[in-house]
Amino acid sequence: MYHSRFQDFTEGGGPAGTAERVATLRAALAARRLDGVLVPRADEYQNEYVPPSDERLAWLSGFTGSAGIAVVLKDAAAIFVDGRYTVQVKSQVDPAVFAIENIAETAPADWLRRHLKPGMKLGFDPSLHTAEAVERYRAAAADAGAELVAAEPNPIDAIWRDRPAPPLKPVTLHEPRFAGEGAADKVARVQAELARAKSDAVILTDPHAVAWLFNIRGGDVSHTPLPLARAVVPASGRPTLLVDGRKLDNRVRATLADLADIAEPADLDREIGRLGAADAKVMLDPAGASFRLLARLEDAGATVLRRADPVAKLKAVKNAAEIAGARAAHRRDAVALCRFLAWVDREAATGKLTEIAAAETLEAFRDESGALKDLSFPTISAAGPNAALPHYRVSRDSNRVVEPGFLLVDSGAQYEDGTTDVTRTIVVGRPGAERLDRFTRVLQGHIAIATAIFPRGTSGAQIDAFARRPLWEAGTDFDHGTGHGVGSYLSVHEGPQRISKLGTVALEPGMIVSNEPGYYKEGAYGIRSENLVLVQEVALDGAERPMLGFETLTLAPFDRRGLAPMLMTAAERAWLDAYHARVLAEVGPSVDAETKGWLEAACAPIRE
Amino acid sequence: MYHSRFQDFTEGGGPAGTAERVATLRAALAARRLDGVLVPRADEYQNEYVPPSDERLAWLSGFTGSAGIAVVLKDAAAIFVDGRYTVQVKSQVDPAVFAIENIAETAPADWLRRHLKPGMKLGFDPSLHTAEAVERYRAAAADAGAELVAAEPNPIDAIWRDRPAPPLKPVTLHEPRFAGEGAADKVARVQAELARAKSDAVILTDPHAVAWLFNIRGGDVSHTPLPLARAVVPASGRPTLLVDGRKLDNRVRATLADLADIAEPADLDREIGRLGAADAKVMLDPAGASFRLLARLEDAGATVLRRADPVAKLKAVKNAAEIAGARAAHRRDAVALCRFLAWVDREAATGKLTEIAAAETLEAFRDESGALKDLSFPTISAAGPNAALPHYRVSRDSNRVVEPGFLLVDSGAQYEDGTTDVTRTIVVGRPGAERLDRFTRVLQGHIAIATAIFPRGTSGAQIDAFARRPLWEAGTDFDHGTGHGVGSYLSVHEGPQRISKLGTVALEPGMIVSNEPGYYKEGAYGIRSENLVLVQEVALDGAERPMLGFETLTLAPFDRRGLAPMLMTAAERAWLDAYHARVLAEVGPSVDAETKGWLEAACAPIRE
Repeated sequence: MYHSRFQDFTEGGGPAGTAERVATLRAALAARRLDGVLVPRADEYQNEYVPPSDERLAWLSGFTGSAGIAVVLKDAAAIFVDGRYTVQVKSQVDPAVFAIENIAETAPADWLRRHLKPGMKLGFDPSLHTAEAVERYRAAAADAGAELVAAEPNPIDAIWRDRPAPPLKPVTLHEPRFAGEGAADKVARVQAELARAKSDAVILTDPHAVAWLFNIRGGDVSHTPLPLARAVVPASGRPTLLVDGRKLDNRVRATLADLADIAEPADLDREIGRLGAADAKVMLDPAGASFRLLARLEDAGATVLRRADPVAKLKAVKNAAEIAGARAAHRRDAVALCRFLAWVDREAATGKLTEIAAAETLEAFRDESGALKDLSFPTISAAGPNAALPHYRVSRDSNRVVEPGFLLVDSGAQYEDGTTDVTRTIVVGRPGAERLDRFTRVLQGHIAIATAIFPRGTSGAQIDAFARRPLWEAGTDFDHGTGHGVGSYLSVHEGPQRISKLGTVALEPGMIVSNEPGYYKEGAYGIRSENLVLVQEVALDGAERPMLGFETLTLAPFDRRGLAPMLMTAAERAWLDAYHARVLAEVGPSVDAETKGWLEAACAPIRE
Repeated sequence: MYHSRFQDFTEGGGPAGTAERVATLRAALAARRLDGVLVPRADEYQNEYVPPSDERLAWLSGFTGSAGIAVVLKDAAAIFVDGRYTVQVKSQVDPAVFAIENIAETAPADWLRRHLKPGMKLGFDPSLHTAEAVERYRAAAADAGAELVAAEPNPIDAIWRDRPAPPLKPVTLHEPRFAGEGAADKVARVQAELARAKSDAVILTDPHAVAWLFNIRGGDVSHTPLPLARAVVPASGRPTLLVDGRKLDNRVRATLADLADIAEPADLDREIGRLGAADAKVMLDPAGASFRLLARLEDAGATVLRRADPVAKLKAVKNAAEIAGARAAHRRDAVALCRFLAWVDREAATGKLTEIAAAETLEAFRDESGALKDLSFPTISAAGPNAALPHYRVSRDSNRVVEPGFLLVDSGAQYEDGTTDVTRTIVVGRPGAERLDRFTRVLQGHIAIATAIFPRGTSGAQIDAFARRPLWEAGTDFDHGTGHGVGSYLSVHEGPQRISKLGTVALEPGMIVSNEPGYYKEGAYGIRSENLVLVQEVALDGAERPMLGFETLTLAPFDRRGLAPMLMTAAERAWLDAYHARVLAEVGPSVDAETKGWLEAACAPIRE
């Protein structure tokens, strides 16, 4: 029996000990003449995944979700989470210690306006908040006659006795055959962007950007192979890479030193001083840079140009090697996926298959490729009503047996040549009319994106509703975006492009995005159909403008048992049959005989 | 023979005399120690239509388009227009006097950066520019080491000898049966918005907002029945209406005085002083308020809250009386439209029909209703290649005979109960395969909007691409939005909602928008299919969320001779047949026998 190497099916956290920790914190705050403190989930890198040493919010509150913030005052405390976590927070946080708030209904700033009293001093760690967030909290405090004050060192760190050590996983070189472009060329492209923006330098605060720029990878956080690091790139001359030197072996250090000066993270203040002394115009992304960094830059005399990280867009457009890698990674992934889907069909029939067993088996099949470096996120294996939570993560407590209905499996892998992300909703037993209707509409939305053709310059926001229209026509919708950008052996969620009403960045050839409409019925079931797609130029007969479209990368059958073919147009059925024929042709030769037999049946043409 | 009452088919303008005017202006600038001046098309109300007394740009440059700006320096001058006017500007402006610039390629600020020299003083009239625009020009001047300085009185006015008098058309009361809500109730709703925004007052700088709020109409500009006026609405107490008292007869004055204090436009400075003295927080729309107004408010000590005009959204949502009026106006308009379409079919066959004759006849048929107050904009009557310009306006010089091909007629009427806007593309002779393809795709886009169902909260930006997908699939597109908001016996273009990638405001029940996809082939032909639609709640069986959709208001057949039915889905053909059946049923009983016979044929079901 295979046991997952990359997820442990525990939620962790929980309220044990948190009342005592909050009491200790309050005493420590009083000693520092503070009336309260903000405790965000974010670390100083504003990352989705945070190392254990920076899980301050989980340590203090017991809440382990990926986004949230707590406020602790003398005689009140609250934790704010978004809609993804309103159920989980209740099982993890002691309501006698923290009021539990849905951030969509009560913003922390509004809560502060009501609970702060004139003269109070509210502490915050300037390294953990963006400047924008600090401005919001400062205004709220001012409205209440209170004051926001920087609290350094961090008040949690000062009392956190068994705090884990910060991660020190070795930095590795991302091989040229996968990266497709040398770091020197990448630096030159960033410098060209700086020249265009009349900027003297950029401080890259996003470790994903640093990993891409220097063609390095690491293991400091879960599921995203990056080293925690920053960089300063001047408009001309050598960049400075700020990374803990203990992560660099001699070969990596020597390779990097060809191109960049290597410095310790704490040397950033010295770099800021230099930029200030030179009256430099320094580009900084206000969505990722900490208040501390921005304030130090301005105090040092630099002029801050608040602009989106220039690397984000460069990184999003994959080069030929990255595209070839993505295709190879998806073909490899497809072998495991198809074997898994065939296995689920056999196991579900026994009535003993569990969500965790499904997740572990899928990982096992991926691992057998020998190329699996990590999951790209913890597998969502969700049966029955669990699948109605789009971000459900199975734990030993929530683990369900797969019964007749739907099993939704949303998973992804990190391979050195590419990152995958795929969702299939597997039909167990005979679905009723409503489920057939919803399953079909979700796939119709998926097909509407997969077949979309649009002029160069079109953004994801413009096409997002293509995925929704079939559901809208039934009076329903889904409450998440249709697609997110995906990295190349980097984060499974990357910008700046996305398919969502907020995705105003143009889709460009070489970008990879997910195509994942869904449908969720609370307490009953959930459906999601997800492939990754690559933006490409499309040559159309008689086209009058440069047009773009999508190449689907993911290769695995959609469950034909969930479809009501008479709801589909002939063109939709033709797309599905052609996709299934492609899956069979590309994956069939690489799977075992049992899987192949299953695949042939799963990829047969559908009948009207 | 009917002659248009509301448009004269001359472009006006032209270069005659402009070289001398520019020379006079330069001498006057030198006498005032200015090195140049900005001459915008806008008047102090930032309106689409400007009274002749404020057509400074046309007087100076000869350019009569609805948007543009000129810069005159000592030894250089340029005029900047957008894509709609790049052809027209060349026929009207003397290139020896003004360099002609496409604003999309060369922004005025960029031109200023290149042409201003250190120490130069560039004058601007602070009443004619928004604060945002002034900030842009000020930054450009600073980059060149020059300075932007307020020039009052306006340098053009000082030399414009035969300047027309400002308009003084009488203010009328918009009858309660059309307005549907009393001015006092409207003021109370605005005051509730002010309370919510914690604002002490709003200055309404948009005459449309003032007309809506006080239920008044006027005739100070073409095609939009509004009086030039402003208002100050305090959070509680009586508003002040700022309007030239000569426009008010005793009855109108007495009615208005029940609700508001009436003051002269020049009294605005006194009102600003009061607001400043009271340390008031004053809401102001930065997209419509002049730099002068904003600066005066701040100088007086008021705090300016930069927010979208609160009336815009209230005005956009039509009440029951306005909706009933819109339906009645469209039925009335349909009688003229259908009669016109039947007439065109007969006249086009003679080979003598001209664009102007078509426009005048359509106006004549509308006028025969006895209810026509104005055209809602100058009729676009465009044959052959003229229709490839989406904003073409026919003049005696450009007037074409309608030959085999397409005649595009985009027109609208102002009735007291509603404003209309409709485009039909009329087929003359037999279209070839390409034209059939394009005509069909445009209608498919139109139908995709007409039949759209979407959750409450959806914006026009989210559905805009529904209108484009059929064209995208052929490798083409159209370069304007799909729809704009429409007023109720007010402007035919109103916000804040629109169907366009920029239309991020949610569509709400009661809003009226146009549905007008098109296709334009330069030098050959143009197609546009436009109805007005009303946003409404939709009751769907089994709907899980509140859903919205559109009721089509406009009633006139689309030309079936332009369609390739085999390109259409069964659902699209069914929509068209049902729409045509409705047109016949609602309009047929009100037209003459000849038109009725034509209408029956035009509304017959299409065959696959």
